[in-house]
Amino acid sequence: MDTKLAVFALGGINEIGKNMYVIQYEDDIVVVDCGSKFPDESLLGVDLIIQDITYLKEHRENVRALIVTHGHEDHIGGIPYFLKQMNVPVYATRLTLGLIELRLKEHGLLRDTKLTLIDGDSTVDLGTISATFFKTNHSIPDCLGIAFETPEGTVVHTGDFKFDLTPVNDDYADLHKMAEIGKKGVLLLLSESTNAERPGFSQSERVVGKHIADAFREAEGKIFISTFASNVHRVQQIIEAAQMTNRKIALLGRSMVNVVSVADELGYLDIPEDMLIEPQEVDQMDPENVVVICTGSQGEPMAALSRLSTNNFRQVSVYPGDTVIFASSPIPGNEKSVSRIIDNLYRLGAKVIYGTGGATGMHVSGHAYREELKLMLSLMKPTYFIPIHGEYRMLQLHKEMAESIGVESENIFILNNGDVLDIHEGVARQTRNVEAGNVFVDGLGIGDVGKVVLRDRKLLSEEGMLIIVVSMSKGDGRIISNPDTISRGFVYERDANELYKEVNELVVSTIKEAKPSTRYRRNDMKHAIRKAVEKLLYTRTKRRPMILPFIIEI
Amino acid sequence: MDTKLAVFALGGINEIGKNMYVIQYEDDIVVVDCGSKFPDESLLGVDLIIQDITYLKEHRENVRALIVTHGHEDHIGGIPYFLKQMNVPVYATRLTLGLIELRLKEHGLLRDTKLTLIDGDSTVDLGTISATFFKTNHSIPDCLGIAFETPEGTVVHTGDFKFDLTPVNDDYADLHKMAEIGKKGVLLLLSESTNAERPGFSQSERVVGKHIADAFREAEGKIFISTFASNVHRVQQIIEAAQMTNRKIALLGRSMVNVVSVADELGYLDIPEDMLIEPQEVDQMDPENVVVICTGSQGEPMAALSRLSTNNFRQVSVYPGDTVIFASSPIPGNEKSVSRIIDNLYRLGAKVIYGTGGATGMHVSGHAYREELKLMLSLMKPTYFIPIHGEYRMLQLHKEMAESIGVESENIFILNNGDVLDIHEGVARQTRNVEAGNVFVDGLGIGDVGKVVLRDRKLLSEEGMLIIVVSMSKGDGRIISNPDTISRGFVYERDANELYKEVNELVVSTIKEAKPSTRYRRNDMKHAIRKAVEKLLYTRTKRRPMILPFIIEI
Repeated sequence: MDTKLAVFALGGINEIGKNMYVIQYEDDIVVVDCGSKFPDESLLGVDLIIQDITYLKEHRENVRALIVTHGHEDHIGGIPYFLKQMNVPVYATRLTLGLIELRLKEHGLLRDTKLTLIDGDSTVDLGTISATFFKTNHSIPDCLGIAFETPEGTVVHTGDFKFDLTPVNDDYADLHKMAEIGKKGVLLLLSESTNAERPGFSQSERVVGKHIADAFREAEGKIFISTFASNVHRVQQIIEAAQMTNRKIALLGRSMVNVVSVADELGYLDIPEDMLIEPQEVDQMDPENVVVICTGSQGEPMAALSRLSTNNFRQVSVYPGDTVIFASSPIPGNEKSVSRIIDNLYRLGAKVIYGTGGATGMHVSGHAYREELKLMLSLMKPTYFIPIHGEYRMLQLHKEMAESIGVESENIFILNNGDVLDIHEGVARQTRNVEAGNVFVDGLGIGDVGKVVLRDRKLLSEEGMLIIVVSMSKGDGRIISNPDTISRGFVYERDANELYKEVNELVVSTIKEAKPSTRYRRNDMKHAIRKAVEKLLYTRTKRRPMILPFIIEI
Repeated sequence: MDTKLAVFALGGINEIGKNMYVIQYEDDIVVVDCGSKFPDESLLGVDLIIQDITYLKEHRENVRALIVTHGHEDHIGGIPYFLKQMNVPVYATRLTLGLIELRLKEHGLLRDTKLTLIDGDSTVDLGTISATFFKTNHSIPDCLGIAFETPEGTVVHTGDFKFDLTPVNDDYADLHKMAEIGKKGVLLLLSESTNAERPGFSQSERVVGKHIADAFREAEGKIFISTFASNVHRVQQIIEAAQMTNRKIALLGRSMVNVVSVADELGYLDIPEDMLIEPQEVDQMDPENVVVICTGSQGEPMAALSRLSTNNFRQVSVYPGDTVIFASSPIPGNEKSVSRIIDNLYRLGAKVIYGTGGATGMHVSGHAYREELKLMLSLMKPTYFIPIHGEYRMLQLHKEMAESIGVESENIFILNNGDVLDIHEGVARQTRNVEAGNVFVDGLGIGDVGKVVLRDRKLLSEEGMLIIVVSMSKGDGRIISNPDTISRGFVYERDANELYKEVNELVVSTIKEAKPSTRYRRNDMKHAIRKAVEKLLYTRTKRRPMILPFIIEI
């Protein structure tokens, strides 16, 4: 292999979530981000999805750093699992480190991990690669893009970004530094594609602040407002609106309490003294003087808002006349759970402010729209381009945008996770790939739930199962105890006695009529029973439950 | 009971789907619509949801008619199951009857069902109740609203509607008749609420025709266009755009073929001669001369479009440069499956025209927006109002709209399915209810899948199961054959041998250490085994599979 520079993803391409990108120059490997992803409903029972890091484990001694662009789940959620497999120094900004530390504590990893604080002005030398950074805007503070200087040229990774030209807390993006990097020449750009389908330019987070303030002025009872805890700027704007309307604030939900406390400690939030009250104080106060900031804006069934909507939150209740604000937009797939919560809040008599796609002005996206993506491409003017963070159609649309601003079509690579882009003496080729895929976390197990288990779960979930236990004599193959049949998830047992009787009779006759060559082979006999019962059940019910015959040989 | 007029829903309130409304005056019962509903992902393995019609079965001899407002699934899908339980004369318009007949044929019910053709000018006498009708616009032709004349006053049921003032095929709604009914005085209005969240006035179906024509003029390869088969006006507009651009049409997907053939036979479609070609002819023709109209716009995994997107449709393929148009908007819950298909079509190199909320102009809703709902309320000026067809928030918003046009707040009833509104001498009361609920169809079973079965399916789907079979002597309680353990959907079996060994040892020790009082009671022994194994598995895996111990007594 004469390749010196190699770039690839272990997660984040053709998907939203579980981001992980790798930049390698000769023997130096740098990893960008280590996110997790939530399973969709087809992955029954899976808790979390993380990356297959086989390649990194095989080159363990070459991995110089994990650099984390920002503190969202899809960029930090896999870190504890990653660090358990290989101890790598972690570099991130202050808030990002604060959020990573929360995770490491939970997993008992804090003491053994080397954490290094960086900011937009840092330079990190990692062997032949050196990393510099530029600040970006996003829906969490303290986000970085990265420019990797390599002997082959500069590789830029945008992280998640938008251009917010009037950011909250004057948290400006490093527009000039981006321009400088672009002017010096970018060999390869990796840029996020989440909103490649949305035309125009995203709105500033400040717009949300204005709408929140208006709603607070109009509200009569208590105010409940739900947003992502990590959207610290939005939380700050809620605090300001509360102060303006003489309301105290209670925080509900574990992540809200944790993240606000980290952000406050690290100076990202400005909370007036005596502003925060405890949940148990809420119902003792005049409703006009309270704001509850809570988790659950995506309809998560165990989060605060969901429990409030069914009157199942121990200390706090929603009363008729209270206002509930969704400062959020449902992520695709969550629409139904969110609607269910809205319905329940209406049932409690609340005034609910919700809407999709920013209709209420209570939410703006943290990701660049099409004109912003073109702006980034124009600033960086890369020779090569890999659209990242997006499903296929978004990558394709981002490719078309890159072409429109002058990147050569054959210099744009829509990759799969694991596809390696090798660049040598200015020429890029995609001809090889490394292992990549989904690793499922279920309970304590990492990777022990795979295709077979999921296929069985799916079958069980749709048709249930039927177990038949029969004991036979090892000696003469005669039936010792009559078949015993039970089912789960198939039909309601009390209604199915007739059917079970039929099944048991069929099992007996199948055994009795079996040729001796079948009867004495336990697996053949089981197979014959399974086939016969399957046929009977399908005729009777048009269903195909999993059938599990047990033969006890005595 | 001194009530004479009673109105209630057996489906369609607090939900979208499985519509069924009942109007009763003394001994005369009339049923409006008999729809089905597709289960959401929580109803594992359920094929279809229909109504609980206990009340109607108990008053079988009083049910005079089933009147069907239009031919959509959520208004006709339950008819075969209903008619199997009680043979009632069915009244509907021509196209609606045509679509009902398709269902009845499939279920072998056509011969024994009395079908009566009605139109906007019909009057149907049903004992003390007489029904007249008014034509409405919707996303299927031949829709009716109903005005029931009863001795107590007029009850109006809108069916599904919008106001399309420039309808395709000059298929105008009976605006004047609605005004006339309203002027004479409406006691009670039941009006649909599907789009109660959408401000303004919906667009005319003609808008879609214009956009389709534009896209056809620009397309270069083959054109694939997907829409609901029952949207006959849209199909007509596609036919016209195809004719204009010299393209022949192939129909893919069973429902597309069936519905187009019914609509064509009954004169609802105007298809030029030689326009239709067979699927197998598609790839033999110049791509510029073909349009494929196909099912699957909602991402249904077995429908034509899904199979085309993965190159799994036997006779037809999507080639690079072909255009695929989604003349549809994803129904909430279908977004992900639709996105997956779009991604796959892009992978095949197709140009894909898609968008949400009418962004592409290729879809308009068939349901009234807020200003149209207010227009209906204003035309009818009812004394009492029941918002129907909608989830709770939509009903609540519709209630607020009714108040805004002058209906008294206490005269508006947000009901649940089964809640009865009794009206006697002009006074309405909601104090009683009849049985109502979801009946699940699974294979041949109607109603045999209930809470217990679904709870088991859910548990099995998330954690799988573990079966332990052990045989014991009836005489002295000693173990005859060692425990045999298998699992499904829990952990990959080959990796779990150590764990199973541990389980088996635990079972043996649990039996041996059991007090004789436990050991000789099979259920107590099973319980003890279950508890012990559960604890072990949770410690080892943090999962709780279903544990099923079998004890064979010899």
